[in-house]
This record gives sequence, C-alpha cells and structure tokens, in this order.
Amino acid sequence: MKNTSFAAIALAAFATSATAQTSVTVYGAIDAGIAKVTDKTLAVTKRDANKLGFRGTEDLGNGLKALFQIEMRYEPDTGTVESGSRPLFQGQTRVGLQGDFGMLRIGRGVTAVQDAKDAFDPFNGISGTPGFKGDVEVAGYTSQPLDPAGSSNDRFNNAVWYNSPVMGGFALNVTAGTKEANGGAAITGLGSSAAPQYPANAEASANPFSVAGTYKLGMMAAMLGYERNAIETKLLHAGVSVNPMPELKLMATYARQDQGHTKAVNPDTKGWLVGANYTVGAGRVLFGYGQKTPDGAVKTKQASLGYEYNLSKRTFLYADVSDKKAATSVKYYGVGVHHNF
Amino acid sequence: MKNTSFAAIALAAFATSATAQTSVTVYGAIDAGIAKVTDKTLAVTKRDANKLGFRGTEDLGNGLKALFQIEMRYEPDTGTVESGSRPLFQGQTRVGLQGDFGMLRIGRGVTAVQDAKDAFDPFNGISGTPGFKGDVEVAGYTSQPLDPAGSSNDRFNNAVWYNSPVMGGFALNVTAGTKEANGGAAITGLGSSAAPQYPANAEASANPFSVAGTYKLGMMAAMLGYERNAIETKLLHAGVSVNPMPELKLMATYARQDQGHTKAVNPDTKGWLVGANYTVGAGRVLFGYGQKTPDGAVKTKQASLGYEYNLSKRTFLYADVSDKKAATSVKYYGVGVHHNF
Amino acid sequence: MKNTSFAAIALAAFATSATAQTSVTVYGAIDAGIAKVTDKTLAVTKRDANKLGFRGTEDLGNGLKALFQIEMRYEPDTGTVESGSRPLFQGQTRVGLQGDFGMLRIGRGVTAVQDAKDAFDPFNGISGTPGFKGDVEVAGYTSQPLDPAGSSNDRFNNAVWYNSPVMGGFALNVTAGTKEANGGAAITGLGSSAAPQYPANAEASANPFSVAGTYKLGMMAAMLGYERNAIETKLLHAGVSVNPMPELKLMATYARQDQGHTKAVNPDTKGWLVGANYTVGAGRVLFGYGQKTPDGAVKTKQASLGYEYNLSKRTFLYADVSDKKAATSVKYYGVGVHHNF
Repeated sequence: MKNTSFAAIALAAFATSATAQTSVTVYGAIDAGIAKVTDKTLAVTKRDANKLGFRGTEDLGNGLKALFQIEMRYEPDTGTVESGSRPLFQGQTRVGLQGDFGMLRIGRGVTAVQDAKDAFDPFNGISGTPGFKGDVEVAGYTSQPLDPAGSSNDRFNNAVWYNSPVMGGFALNVTAGTKEANGGAAITGLGSSAAPQYPANAEASANPFSVAGTYKLGMMAAMLGYERNAIETKLLHAGVSVNPMPELKLMATYARQDQGHTKAVNPDTKGWLVGANYTVGAGRVLFGYGQKTPDGAVKTKQASLGYEYNLSKRTFLYADVSDKKAATSVKYYGVGVHHNF
Repeated sequence: MKNTSFAAIALAAFATSATAQTSVTVYGAIDAGIAKVTDKTLAVTKRDANKLGFRGTEDLGNGLKALFQIEMRYEPDTGTVESGSRPLFQGQTRVGLQGDFGMLRIGRGVTAVQDAKDAFDPFNGISGTPGFKGDVEVAGYTSQPLDPAGSSNDRFNNAVWYNSPVMGGFALNVTAGTKEANGGAAITGLGSSAAPQYPANAEASANPFSVAGTYKLGMMAAMLGYERNAIETKLLHAGVSVNPMPELKLMATYARQDQGHTKAVNPDTKGWLVGANYTVGAGRVLFGYGQKTPDGAVKTKQASLGYEYNLSKRTFLYADVSDKKAATSVKYYGVGVHHNF
Repeated sequence: MKNTSFAAIALAAFATSATAQTSVTVYGAIDAGIAKVTDKTLAVTKRDANKLGFRGTEDLGNGLKALFQIEMRYEPDTGTVESGSRPLFQGQTRVGLQGDFGMLRIGRGVTAVQDAKDAFDPFNGISGTPGFKGDVEVAGYTSQPLDPAGSSNDRFNNAVWYNSPVMGGFALNVTAGTKEANGGAAITGLGSSAAPQYPANAEASANPFSVAGTYKLGMMAAMLGYERNAIETKLLHAGVSVNPMPELKLMATYARQDQGHTKAVNPDTKGWLVGANYTVGAGRVLFGYGQKTPDGAVKTKQASLGYEYNLSKRTFLYADVSDKKAATSVKYYGVGVHHNF
C-alpha cells in the first residue's frame, strides 16, 4: 500500500533498502553435460532444469507468513530462456500465505499431481532424456494443452494452489485453474479442421484442476492423484515407495490418461514405472524401467541407469545411459555436472 | 575502467567480490488476484505492476552519489514478461548521479509528468482495471506512440532525466528524449495509408520532452505538468491533493490532450478525476470517479471503489469494484494480494 | 542430488536458505551516454556492454572449487535484451570446476581467442562504435556464423573451456565446441541459392575450436591465438603489449582471417591495430588506430581517441571521438557514464 508524498517519490526510488536486501533469496541451479543420442551429433546438453530464482518469506505474526517465489529457467548451452521460447519465469510465479491452515498460493506453477509424483520417480523428475518425466511416467499427459507450442507439460497458468498441513503423515494438495484463454493453437479433437473442437486461443471447456493426496508412514510413502486439464483429458496417477534399508529406495508409479473428450477412438493411455535408488558412500545409483501403452498404437519402453557422485551438498557429477524403444528408438549416453546455488 | 592484465582475466571473472554483494539491492513486488469482468470468464489477474528490480547507490564523496536502477516486469498468472511482449527491463533502466544539484539520469523510464501524477491518483497509479492510469487520468495520452505495439503508455526510451532538489516545497522534474526511431508501426495521421505521416520505424518529428513541477505545503500538494511526445501530441496535466485530517486524503486531476499535429478534426481530449483515500486502522478505503471526453466521440465514465488491508508494511490484501461506461461498458470485481520484497 | 521425502517438498521450496543467500553474487554494469554519428540523429547509446550477472564459487576441499556464472545483457536506452534479440543470458552461461589443474567449464561464452585479445585492445574490447572489437581488430571474423541473425560475434554455444594455470608467466586457454545446429539462416558459400553450402539450421562441418596462449614477463605481455568456426573460417590473432612506465601501456595486434572454405575468390582479410593507454591522475587517455584489409575490397581505417575519468573504483565518466573510413565513413562523438555494481 504505497502512500508516499509526491515530493519524495523520485529520490526514494533509489534509497537502498536494508529490509529489501534481507527479504529476497537468490537461488538456482546450473546443470550441463555432454551427451550422445542415436543418430545425432555429440551435444552439450542438460540433464535437469536450469534455474535462477528469487524467493522470500515474511513473518506476519500469529504463525502467519507471506511468501513468494519467482523462478526463471534457461539453457546453459545457448544462453536462451528454456527451450528458447518458454515464458521468462517458466519455473513458477506464485505469491501466497502460509499458516496453521496450510499454504494458499496464486499464480503459475507445477500442478498438485505433477508436483507430488517426482518423489516416486527414480530419476527425481529430471527433464533430460534419461528421465521419465512427462512421457512414460504420466502416460504422455500434458497439463497445458491450450497454451502456445513450447509450453511445458506439467503446469497450470492462472491458478490457485492449496497445500494442507501434514496430518498424521497425510497431506492434500489441490490446484484449480480458471478457463482463461492463453493463446494456444487450435485442437481439432472431435471437430474438423474447418470447425475444430477447440479453435485457436480457445478457453477451457471446464475448469482445470489437480488433486493429490500423499501419505508417509515410517519407511513407506504413497500418493494418489487426479487431474483434469483444459480440454478435459483426465489423468489418474498413483505412486508408492519404500525404504527397506536407509540406503535403498524402491518405487513404482502407475498412470492412466483418458482423452475421451477429444478422441473418438483409442482414448486411453497407460503408463507404469518401477525403479530404485541406492546410495553408496558419496555416490548414488539410479535405475528405472517403464512402459507407456497407448490404445491401438505402438508401446514406448524405457530403461535408464544413472550414477551421481556428490562433490558436496550442492554439487554432483553424473553419468547416465538410457534405452528408449518406441516408434523411433534411441540410446543415450551422457555425463555432466549439476551445481545448486 | 578495466585495466586488468591479460593473465588474470579468466580467473578474476570468478572471484566472488565482497563489494559487489553489498552494492546491489534486489527488490520487487508480486501482485495477483482473482477478478470477474463483464462478459469475461473469471480470471487470475493483477491489480498493480509486478516487479523484479536491481538497484544501488555508491558514495563518491563530497555529497555526490552514483546510482542505478534496472527493473523487470512480469505477469504472475502466466510467468511471461509484462503483457507477454514488453522489454525485459520494462520498469526502467537508468544510471546517473545525485548531489546538491539534484539528480541526473540517463536511459529509459517513466516521464516526469507520468511519474508525478500517481500521487494525485486515488488508486496510486495501479495499472489494473480498477485504476485510472493511462486512460481516464491522462485523457488517453501515450508517451511512446512510435514504439512497437505492446509498449507501455508512460515512458520515454532514449532520454535524460533531471530532478531538482526540493526547494521550499517546490521541485522541478524534466525528461528530454532524442528523436531516435524505435521500430514502431506506421501512423497515418494527416497523411494517407500510401504516405503515412509517420512511416514504419519513423523518427520523432520533434524531440519529446516532459516537465513537471510539484509543490507541497503542509497538508496541501499540487503538480502541474506538460509533455510532448514523438508525434507532437501535447498533454497538460494538473493535480491537487489535500489532507484535511491525517487519515483522509482528497485529490483531483485534470488533463488535456491536443492531437492537432496528427488529427485534422476533433483533436482535443479532456480527462478529469476526483478521489479520496481514507485510512481506518490497518485498512484503507480508495474511491475515485473520472471522465474522459474526446471531441466528437463517446465519453468514458469510470467509478472505482477499493479496500486495502495491511497484513504488514510489505503485504496487503485488497478488494475492488469498478464500473466503466464507454463505447463498451464493463463492471469489475476483484480480490487479491500484494507483496513487496 | 535431491532426495527429499515427498511430504516436505512443497514447504521446503519456500524455506529461505541461509546458504543460498551467501552462494550467489549479483553483479553487473550499466553504461549509457549520448552520441552523435555522421548522418544520424543524436542518440542515447552505450559504449560498453550492459550486464546483470549471477556468479558464485563453492569450496569442495583439497583445493577444488565448483563455480558458475550466468550473465544477462541489456540495452539501457530501451530496456530490451541486448540488441533487442539476443539470448537472455547473452553474456555467458557456464559451470565448472577449478583446481590445481586449472579451470574446466561447460556451457556458452566468449571463445579463448576472443577472450584473450581484449587485454591488447586500447579500448578494452568495448562493443560501442569507438571500439575496435569485432571488426578491425579481428579482421571481420565471427565465431558463430551458423547462429540466428543477431547473435554476437565472439562466442561459442555448446562448448567446453579449459584454462590452464599460469606457469612461468605462460597460460593456455582452449575452447572446443560441438557440431550442433543452432537454427541459423542458410549460408550460400561455395554452393548456390538453391543448394547452399550450409542450408538453414545446418550443423557445423567441423568441430569449432579456439586456442590462445598468453605470456607475461615483467612489463611485457603477448598472446597468440588460433580459432576455427563452424563453417571452417580460420582466424589467426596475435597481440603484444608493453608498459615502458607504469602510467603508459603500448599495444598492438595483428589478425588474419581465412574464408577459403566458403569463398572461392579473395578469401583473406587482414587486420591490425596499434594503440596506447596513458594514466593521468584520476583520468586515462585511450588512443587506437587500425586497418582491416579484405582481399579485393575497400579497406576500413579507424582512429579513436577516448578519455575516462574515474569518479571511484566502480564509476567513471567518458568522452570519445572516432573516425572510421570504409565503404561508408562515419565520425563519432560521444560522452557518458559507466557504473559497475
């Protein structure tokens, strides 16, 4: 609530605020390596998303906090924003309040389901080729079908997030979006090219939402999620993990996508993924195997093996091999470095 | 003035400079809410501009300071730069010196007139629908007519700013721009489509400038400003405010725009705005009513009522209603949160 | 290596990390002034690149460090990214390790040759009109010919950097790039418009690389570099400098570009540059003269004289005059301010 007298405005704009200095944390990650993919030239690439973010919390008293987080994404091999075309703050732009009631935020970010699933992914939800995110793991589902090409698969624009407190190991996370148009291309769906089901820059036909429940008990954890996007594709996602010993984590997910609202035939796609993480000294072995089975189309099968070696709590080296069999099959070999700051 | 020996360059680039750490303040604001506008779907939107800025001052001795400020703008509901198309540092990019003589800056920013007027706006110059900025309050005037579509209304590119010190309550602010072309679309004006008065990527036909005088005496404040843009549209802007008691501020502005250089008929537009702010405990009520009267065209009439509730000095919740009658009339209802960091 | 349990993810994302706060240095530069160039209107412009960067180092023990640096570029007169079209992090995006072995980095940045040459440039490699960078000094050579229009002249995408430690005054810097396509326009070269030698979005025909050796002994320094870009244009670059007295630095460079891989006739261009820096009190005089001689085409001759006056270690004022004779000749007069933060 600014209420400055007019004479003070210009000069005050330059006052170096001591409080401002302590209210923002600058953070991020840079991940770059070298990879060889079948039939492609050797490339400098990334394994995980590259981030530059700004976040902070403000104590409002009575256990209430204001909080914000805005996060850029970028490509370390070319210096552009993520994929060369994504929004500047592709990571997230959210502001909200946190208290005994949980956390309520508004803006743009990863949906409740897509956020919860990474803990059951043996490759931690990395976006690079050896990971399972966005394809096998979620049965090819995309959260933003009416956004412009180049948008990411796992976010909602124009949405509200509620994260419940953890109660007896159980937590509930909900994301609800508006029907606002976001400038995407037309989707033919059950219509025709002349009269597409969703014309260019269409509004959602129903409010998109995403609900995820998570549960943790001792060495066991589980999630169950359900999401409906702007063109009424539905996604059911379940995950479970167990740590039979401290250094070993086993995990599995199952996803089912229903495109019945836009596809007359073969609307269902199923995906499943099993995997393990095994810690040895400063290193960790990652293994995953999954399949995606679209109705009446060729299966995707992917196996990935990775190794991460911690140089510190913030920096690790990695090496991955991955084999993906689909309409086009690819083998992947990559090494690199990941540095959090 | 860098003068490093060649052998030290590569390594020095990575030296973590302690002085650098203290010379930049990272600051900003995030403002997001939910709004309903007549005939539009419920939307996640903003009420005020969203900022991520970097600024600092350096003491040069003898009362002289160097200062800079660069400020990004973004959309919290989609993560893009402001409006999806504005310059990365839409807020401002200025560097300069400050001393007994006042403040002299160069770069890009809000003009002297547009900067001074916000203190006389009952909605503090917010850019959202309930505000009066850029339309009613300034009679529809735009400071950057030769810039590409999507540029903002109230800035000069390629300009110099001088802010005088406050002398006996009086201050003078001046902005002067070059005639440089900025890549805008053609403006037909008094020409024809075949030979527009300002072709695409035209230079200014006269140097744009903006002058604002402000005066403060006890409970009373006033401003008088005059601005001429790159296509020689002129804007006269006057404002006055009074605080009859500490919790009440009354204010009024009058603006007159003369487009005689590019319009043969009906070149004049007038705008006026009256309003009040009333502080009650941690809350503040905002009210404004204004009209814009273009020669020979339909009037715009707007009434807005807002309420801001401070959760802290940096965070407040708000609720607004607004009714705008024009060629197309809209009613607006919105609630949200504003967090400064 | 993130391994957080699922229940903690959402809340932990907002924990203000004390370590993060100290691991990033925000730095930059803002440089703006006023300049007049022959046949152009008076303009607000820059003399040197404008930067906003984020960097840090992490001590890994045993003399090993992790380091990263990501750097935006922008235009202070319009608020856009550099040139209005360059990548967001145009400056650099690199991550790597540093130890007794030297420094190894991966990402995008200035090549070894282009990085080493600035120390032999009397105008310190500034990008503005009075400088010699990118034209006379490097014989018109460009490091990124297959990148989209608007890319800079002196960087490699998709590359690895090695900087040796300084041994007896000698250091070796190497940059090696992949053949990856980067979305550039077609280059006709020795082909035809119908069948260009490098079609649009072509891969490199050989791995680009850049090698520079630098040597420093007492008051003398020298460099010798060789670079081959993605279309196999070769650049030889040599430089020498001497400080006969502490306040005087004399320098000279020689460059030879061989475009034999894409030009059938007149493939060679030579460039040379001599200059001096002279420190007087808080000021410094800069002088340079150079020529670029392309086979069978008109020569470019440029003389530049500059003066920098230090207001502090971080801020200086400058004034330059420059005279460039080529196919189109221009005279340049400029003044401005440069502020490092």
